[in-house]
Amino acid sequence: MDVNRPSSHSPSPESGSGGSPGSGSTDPFAGSDQHTAISEVGEFGLIAHMRDVLGEPDDASVVSGISDDAAVYRIDERGRVHLATSDALLEGIHFDRTFMPMEHLGFKALSVNVSDIVAMNATPRYAIITLGIPQQMSVEMVGTLYEGVKQACEAYDISVVGGDTTGARGLQVNATVIGEANEEDVVYRQGARVGDKVCVTGDVGASYAGLKVLVANRKQMQEAGDDFQPNLDPFSYVIRRHLAPPAQLKAIQDWAEAGVRPNSMIDISDGVASEAHHISEASGVGMQLYEPALPISVETRNTATEFGEDVSVYALFGGEDYELLFTLPESKVDDLDPQSFSVIGEVTDLDDPAERVMFQQADGENVPLQPGGFDHFDEEAE
Amino acid sequence: MDVNRPSSHSPSPESGSGGSPGSGSTDPFAGSDQHTAISEVGEFGLIAHMRDVLGEPDDASVVSGISDDAAVYRIDERGRVHLATSDALLEGIHFDRTFMPMEHLGFKALSVNVSDIVAMNATPRYAIITLGIPQQMSVEMVGTLYEGVKQACEAYDISVVGGDTTGARGLQVNATVIGEANEEDVVYRQGARVGDKVCVTGDVGASYAGLKVLVANRKQMQEAGDDFQPNLDPFSYVIRRHLAPPAQLKAIQDWAEAGVRPNSMIDISDGVASEAHHISEASGVGMQLYEPALPISVETRNTATEFGEDVSVYALFGGEDYELLFTLPESKVDDLDPQSFSVIGEVTDLDDPAERVMFQQADGENVPLQPGGFDHFDEEAE
Repeated sequence: MDVNRPSSHSPSPESGSGGSPGSGSTDPFAGSDQHTAISEVGEFGLIAHMRDVLGEPDDASVVSGISDDAAVYRIDERGRVHLATSDALLEGIHFDRTFMPMEHLGFKALSVNVSDIVAMNATPRYAIITLGIPQQMSVEMVGTLYEGVKQACEAYDISVVGGDTTGARGLQVNATVIGEANEEDVVYRQGARVGDKVCVTGDVGASYAGLKVLVANRKQMQEAGDDFQPNLDPFSYVIRRHLAPPAQLKAIQDWAEAGVRPNSMIDISDGVASEAHHISEASGVGMQLYEPALPISVETRNTATEFGEDVSVYALFGGEDYELLFTLPESKVDDLDPQSFSVIGEVTDLDDPAERVMFQQADGENVPLQPGGFDHFDEEAE
Repeated sequence: MDVNRPSSHSPSPESGSGGSPGSGSTDPFAGSDQHTAISEVGEFGLIAHMRDVLGEPDDASVVSGISDDAAVYRIDERGRVHLATSDALLEGIHFDRTFMPMEHLGFKALSVNVSDIVAMNATPRYAIITLGIPQQMSVEMVGTLYEGVKQACEAYDISVVGGDTTGARGLQVNATVIGEANEEDVVYRQGARVGDKVCVTGDVGASYAGLKVLVANRKQMQEAGDDFQPNLDPFSYVIRRHLAPPAQLKAIQDWAEAGVRPNSMIDISDGVASEAHHISEASGVGMQLYEPALPISVETRNTATEFGEDVSVYALFGGEDYELLFTLPESKVDDLDPQSFSVIGEVTDLDDPAERVMFQQADGENVPLQPGGFDHFDEEAE
């Protein structure tokens, strides 16, 4: 396979590549008379610029600011920290209201935030929900969305402590989740060590497979009208993974019981390739990944076959799996339940930044992997 | 004046009236086959329903959930609490990009959240910013927005600890602010006692006056094209109050130094009338307000005169002033700097819910005041 071939859903590998505007171009952040397109710097470039403008927090209680999945700040002198993260799901960008059930939307809005807290090895506690609601929505639909929020609260044992609503042009759910941990237990993107095994929980690529099915199904329905009788049963797993992905809270709870703490961790929101680059860049290490080791469900494989596409592209660049990508000393690998994760590679020395993450394909060829992944500035949800 | 006359900008007094759907109507939250319009229950109705669906948090650390300006939860056993609030500014709903400078937008997004923390008598500490950015915006514009965020961080001595960006159809800035206090110092909407003086910091109605000027100016520019030379100098105060309103952090700091703690408090985001109703309802008391006592700046009066409108309507229903409305035992009134606030009424027994908040007009007539105020479900920003 050509792992760096952009698929219809994956942006080109050049985009979203960590915020460095093309070499030779004028610094887009310098002047105010210029007009530099957002797509030139990408989402990560904008975040990096925010960090540059604001500088490091001069509050000694802040352990980690704009650089990881969640902020970390001390709440007492006895080693306890809180973690906070905020993410929004916007209609037309992150979801399509024609096939996103309101209940799942409410659930997912919390999941994606809980996932960020879990990815720092912390326990989610509180949530704040802010809804933007277009006028044509009904009160009953909003009530169904709340039911999904409630299911997430029960699944993750968190409390919604704040809520607000406002009018909006498109439906949106903004959620903030606050978590708790001992400072020494927090796991960051940085911390991967040469020799660590690169691991992933569950399976990857399913969410993207589910999106493919839903988009194709909507298209068929639009073309065939009332005559169309969809059979989505063979795709129920991948569809559910897209619409209502669970955060991997149970995994970190099991590890805590087993006394295992990963050296580095991130959740898979943008695809394995993008997240591997984040850990690699934050930790100053390289990575070697193996195609045959990628955990991919049968249903995800069947979906890719159905669409005549390469399932590894789904796994590497699809995103929205909300599984955990983490690195672990080899000696700890046997301490974890082997059913709960897969070893997909190892952490290496970083000799050449152009070969930051290497990917050994099923045919044996070893190629540099580009971050790729979803960049919401490049594409809107179909 | 007829204080309950809906102006062009104030929704009718019937809307946003606390979430009770009209008596006799079917419960819009009960069935799922129904389609009840959002405007029938309003913003406060939706929030009340969220509270109903989710129930009270069963986490003992939660002091106050979905009911006040910010959530309150304990962070240790020594009486310290954190407060968290989340509010979004959406293009086309909360601001018009044609006359909202990016720097002011960044500042205001933090101000409105800091204001919620301050309204609970707490100190803001940390902020998380999530931007939704449409493709046609330039990187330079985003940079200018960050500069406004930075100014707010310096003004309020807070640290941005998290930031995220995503694509969006319209520009939006979501901010979460986390604050800190001793539990015993926190002031809620509830707590007003009969006999308390009703007070307000600074002056009210200016933000709405500024919006009037900006909307009229845009219209003139559209009609006259390049020939139009606007002179906005006479309105610089009210315009600034609309575009970059400061939160009243200094006020609560001064009160703490003077050893004064209000019995109840709320910030004025929806207008004096609406906020007075919130305190009245939460505290189970009535209120008597006096028109001549409303603190209104000369420039706000001049603006109302210019538009041939009643300036008290601006003050009561305009909103977005981000001043503090609070109640104080009469014995404490002299402990505060008289330059820093105005007494506009007193807390009374609640005999008749239809006369919850009474308003004695300048002509001497005493009339029941409806909450009115802005409801973003009724109107979009012009």
